[in-house]
Amino acid sequence: MTTHLLSVDSLSKDQVDHLLRVASRMEPIAARRKVTRVLEGAVLGNLFFEASTRTRVSFNAAFCRLGGSVCDTTGFTFSSMAKGESLYDTSRVMSGYCDAIVMRHPDQGSVAEFAEATNVPVINGGDGPGEHPSQALLDLYTIDKEFTRLGKHLGGAHLLLTGDLKHGRTVHSLIKLLSLYEPLRITLVSPPGLEMPGQLVDLVASRGHRVEQRESLDSDFGDLDVVYTTRIQKERFTDELSESFAGVSQDFRVDRAFLDNHCSATTIVMHPLPRDSRPGANDLNVDLNGDPRLAIFRQTDNGIPVRMAIFATLLGVEELIEKEMRDVRWFVPETFGVDDRQL
Amino acid sequence: MTTHLLSVDSLSKDQVDHLLRVASRMEPIAARRKVTRVLEGAVLGNLFFEASTRTRVSFNAAFCRLGGSVCDTTGFTFSSMAKGESLYDTSRVMSGYCDAIVMRHPDQGSVAEFAEATNVPVINGGDGPGEHPSQALLDLYTIDKEFTRLGKHLGGAHLLLTGDLKHGRTVHSLIKLLSLYEPLRITLVSPPGLEMPGQLVDLVASRGHRVEQRESLDSDFGDLDVVYTTRIQKERFTDELSESFAGVSQDFRVDRAFLDNHCSATTIVMHPLPRDSRPGANDLNVDLNGDPRLAIFRQTDNGIPVRMAIFATLLGVEELIEKEMRDVRWFVPETFGVDDRQL
Amino acid sequence: MTTHLLSVDSLSKDQVDHLLRVASRMEPIAARRKVTRVLEGAVLGNLFFEASTRTRVSFNAAFCRLGGSVCDTTGFTFSSMAKGESLYDTSRVMSGYCDAIVMRHPDQGSVAEFAEATNVPVINGGDGPGEHPSQALLDLYTIDKEFTRLGKHLGGAHLLLTGDLKHGRTVHSLIKLLSLYEPLRITLVSPPGLEMPGQLVDLVASRGHRVEQRESLDSDFGDLDVVYTTRIQKERFTDELSESFAGVSQDFRVDRAFLDNHCSATTIVMHPLPRDSRPGANDLNVDLNGDPRLAIFRQTDNGIPVRMAIFATLLGVEELIEKEMRDVRWFVPETFGVDDRQL
Repeated sequence: MTTHLLSVDSLSKDQVDHLLRVASRMEPIAARRKVTRVLEGAVLGNLFFEASTRTRVSFNAAFCRLGGSVCDTTGFTFSSMAKGESLYDTSRVMSGYCDAIVMRHPDQGSVAEFAEATNVPVINGGDGPGEHPSQALLDLYTIDKEFTRLGKHLGGAHLLLTGDLKHGRTVHSLIKLLSLYEPLRITLVSPPGLEMPGQLVDLVASRGHRVEQRESLDSDFGDLDVVYTTRIQKERFTDELSESFAGVSQDFRVDRAFLDNHCSATTIVMHPLPRDSRPGANDLNVDLNGDPRLAIFRQTDNGIPVRMAIFATLLGVEELIEKEMRDVRWFVPETFGVDDRQL
Repeated sequence: MTTHLLSVDSLSKDQVDHLLRVASRMEPIAARRKVTRVLEGAVLGNLFFEASTRTRVSFNAAFCRLGGSVCDTTGFTFSSMAKGESLYDTSRVMSGYCDAIVMRHPDQGSVAEFAEATNVPVINGGDGPGEHPSQALLDLYTIDKEFTRLGKHLGGAHLLLTGDLKHGRTVHSLIKLLSLYEPLRITLVSPPGLEMPGQLVDLVASRGHRVEQRESLDSDFGDLDVVYTTRIQKERFTDELSESFAGVSQDFRVDRAFLDNHCSATTIVMHPLPRDSRPGANDLNVDLNGDPRLAIFRQTDNGIPVRMAIFATLLGVEELIEKEMRDVRWFVPETFGVDDRQL
Repeated sequence: MTTHLLSVDSLSKDQVDHLLRVASRMEPIAARRKVTRVLEGAVLGNLFFEASTRTRVSFNAAFCRLGGSVCDTTGFTFSSMAKGESLYDTSRVMSGYCDAIVMRHPDQGSVAEFAEATNVPVINGGDGPGEHPSQALLDLYTIDKEFTRLGKHLGGAHLLLTGDLKHGRTVHSLIKLLSLYEPLRITLVSPPGLEMPGQLVDLVASRGHRVEQRESLDSDFGDLDVVYTTRIQKERFTDELSESFAGVSQDFRVDRAFLDNHCSATTIVMHPLPRDSRPGANDLNVDLNGDPRLAIFRQTDNGIPVRMAIFATLLGVEELIEKEMRDVRWFVPETFGVDDRQL
């Protein structure tokens, strides 16, 4: 394993496999049947220069479930950075306080620059339009876990990725990770102007995967194993793109009708969240809530074991955890969500 | 016990009694003579969509004193909620990270809506003009504890509630809890337009309590056991109300002169805090600081054992705590406040 | 030891020496070779009414490394203080929740006022232009530790303090601490209008130290043991001062050329951080990064053992820590920063 986790590009297939195996072993803790304290005394610096509830709390909780303590920091552009402090200085200073650092920052490349100054493990929690490797790992882990449950194999599977494939860093990172594995069939569907960047399509194709691109969800896709939907991120649009997109209607909304027409009982639907649940939103529809094929909450739940695995691996404690697990003694519900079903 | 604590309405008298008994058993920990680690490994999501130092830190500290870890979140309207995420999604996602969730939100009913999506215990930390059940429980606990100290009984006691009884959710919840007990005499004093809502008065009266309403503190009340004061919350006023209230002078300020005229040595004075201590404020006067009848800081201290009891009961660990208490080994002052007196 | 740590003025030389000795014994924990849990169950209230990443995280991490839990609060002027709550009330309320309180506030004297209401230990984390005693202690600790490494003695050493010596509270506190020790030679260099306050110069001189004041770094200083640089804090300038300062060029920037001309191989360069690393900034230059004489990151690292020592001493657990230290089991890099050198 490298010192930092900045991009999925730096991960070999063996390293990815190792992380997924460790994540799998974290499941009893993530499911709150077991407790470990292996990182007791360690401190995480959870540095969010950009608002994020989900990712921040997920990293925080994962570190706590390993026994560590967390120093959260949000929006600190108003503090020392505003006084002209460099990323180099901030990084080196935080390294004296913390055993690991998670950082989210709106500027692409900033987390890598931060990591250059330190020997303390740094995890990229999202750098603007750049990378968000822990999300890609939990997405891959979700596909692997769901396929295992369904008795499917990854090789030869058919994945549909839809939405804003241009700005969606999660699909960029996921597709790179998937490309390390046996040949897949990948169908990309996005409105004109929001297509997956060409070099990514070429990279995946060059690794032996079959990639198709379409402009509408109203097509014949054949059998689908995974439908991965993303939000149209209007806040990242240029003015020009906003105008051209005004004509696009509800065509990119995945809903129950879409599943009825295109999917089987074993298709799973994913989304990196948050999804826009307001009426008329061009996003994954709420009419799928309660459908067992909707895997979005199992997916977000997987953030805990995967981020535990990242911490455990970077900090070299993955072999210590199982030796010290204790039983949880407090009340844990059978399912976390009221609409969850035992599958 | 129900899964969630959303409103005092859902609590039976037996459940309230149980919570108060558990709170009483938490006292050695809250007083920092003992330590427990029964929730070691558990994670609290402390979600504050609205600023609150006191309540947020109180819940946080109570969970820590049970051994758990806390993920604090403040003002996250700027994050995923702003992107159109539903309370349903936020709730289900947080449920995968946390063992219990405290939530404060400016919109009445929002915490209940949030709780509908999850099987993880949710505690209402205040939903706008709605409910704030942990405050009502700590108020009741304070009355019970002070009465025990003074050798008084709740049945037949005379309570004066004054201030903004229309908008004050703490007095609404408290009066509902009190109404479960033996008949009381309750005097309500508020300026015109800020009276206790009629249906609440009717409810309490229908349960056998003697309720009187007055418009001035300059009356003959007879013996008073409790004077519960509240701040005039001008930030919740309509324009019309602001105008009509402009004529009201200092008549609703409880101060030393009021106590000298209307109270005995065993009357206690309460307030949900914060109080406005600026000169001319229409609030509980600082000239009572140091008077042993001023129970406001004992009241806020009681937030710790009561919130510990809420967590312990919802998470089903209330019987484990005493078996594992250890002695505190660090310096603990005899009294927390310089003006506290050993009573 | 007193109950609170509000100012270096309240510390005797014996108390300072005790704190430095305890800090020294915290080094194995700060260096992450050892873990202690002596404050397990204790809660720190880390109250920052003013933004500060560095100081806030440093106190937070130090308390965590002693085994305690931390409730962070930032910018809560928007909460109860905005509703007219007094420092007295805030202090007394927080005292019921927390075992120790760190407070930063923009108003000079506010932390002392806060501390007057409570018997719980309060540490001044900076009160505007007032005091910041933990910074002064870690600065002194750094000088002592570096001198020990270099085989030097404090008595007779020559220190150069430069930058904004008028507004820089860290140099005010440091110079007071240093004045408790054997006679030093202290050279103060600042632009006109930003000189060290006269009563401080007089105090130090009256204690037997040799103090010289200059207006330019382009002088012959003789041998220098310590160069302590500070940022020109323009945000604290009056309009008049801003104008007069407009003519001052890069004369107050300590850089490699300055070290080549004025310093030896055993001179150390310090800075309270953050430093302004933007091009043209009138601050310590980045061309010194990687130079072993640049002690600024060793200095900030020292914040952990010194703040651990402050907590341990105020809470009376300094004799318990070594009895219970365990080995760290996670990955710890040989040096925290990539440019650090083993000295």
